[in-house]
Amino acid sequence: MPDISQKLQTFFETHLPITDYMGLAVDSYNGKSLSLKAPLAPNINDKQTAFGGSLYNACVMACWGFAYLKSIEANIQGNQVVAAGSIKYKAPVDADYMAVCESPGEEAIEHFIDGFKRHGKGLITLKSTITCNGKVAVEFEGTYAVLK
Amino acid sequence: MPDISQKLQTFFETHLPITDYMGLAVDSYNGKSLSLKAPLAPNINDKQTAFGGSLYNACVMACWGFAYLKSIEANIQGNQVVAAGSIKYKAPVDADYMAVCESPGEEAIEHFIDGFKRHGKGLITLKSTITCNGKVAVEFEGTYAVLK
Repeated sequence: MPDISQKLQTFFETHLPITDYMGLAVDSYNGKSLSLKAPLAPNINDKQTAFGGSLYNACVMACWGFAYLKSIEANIQGNQVVAAGSIKYKAPVDADYMAVCESPGEEAIEHFIDGFKRHGKGLITLKSTITCNGKVAVEFEGTYAVLK
Repeated sequence: MPDISQKLQTFFETHLPITDYMGLAVDSYNGKSLSLKAPLAPNINDKQTAFGGSLYNACVMACWGFAYLKSIEANIQGNQVVAAGSIKYKAPVDADYMAVCESPGEEAIEHFIDGFKRHGKGLITLKSTITCNGKVAVEFEGTYAVLK
């Protein structure tokens, strides 16, 4: 894990106790995508699959983490917040899982950073997915802001 | 707590370990609305307010629990699942919180139960909210199914 994604892992451990319960942790980050992983056991439901709320938590934090790391890369110090989220559950997740946020592209990231620098508020829409048994099981989209 | 909502509490304790971590519990149910409560401490974030994922979990389960209890009241035995959810975060939640699902009305509930009885699949859209300091802080809407 490069140093920058270690900052996100440290954030989880310092500030978000539920991620410790969930076992939610940074798997990888390469500047273009961020992957968070979680074990099934603490997140299980009555059907022996992952609880929908735990799937949401991994997805919302994959995108939040992406916005957080892009803010660090741009040397801006603000508060990243989620304003809205929507999720579709397409198939059950019956194993340890990974939520992956892919970059929305350089233009969207520049708009996010510039909004913060110019107006004290940057906005970005980010998507993440969870794949299980070779197919997309969960699709998430969230709106995020970085605020002074 | 009447006996029927105790069944939901027992479900949480038996099948959803994350609700134990969160301290998520049934507060009240009267046939027309279901309230779930959670303490701030285990659900806190870096801003000393409730983590957006924990707010989602309370909302998604308030609606799921409503569908679960309506299924019990109708004497149908199926699996209740969430198919999709969307949430808007309108204000921070800086205290213990309560997610409240209000009934969508008798017609929607009958459609839900009849769909299951006739076709093995009933669908319903349910909404829940979290209020903090006298105003709505979180709005959630989810699509739920009950399946054979």
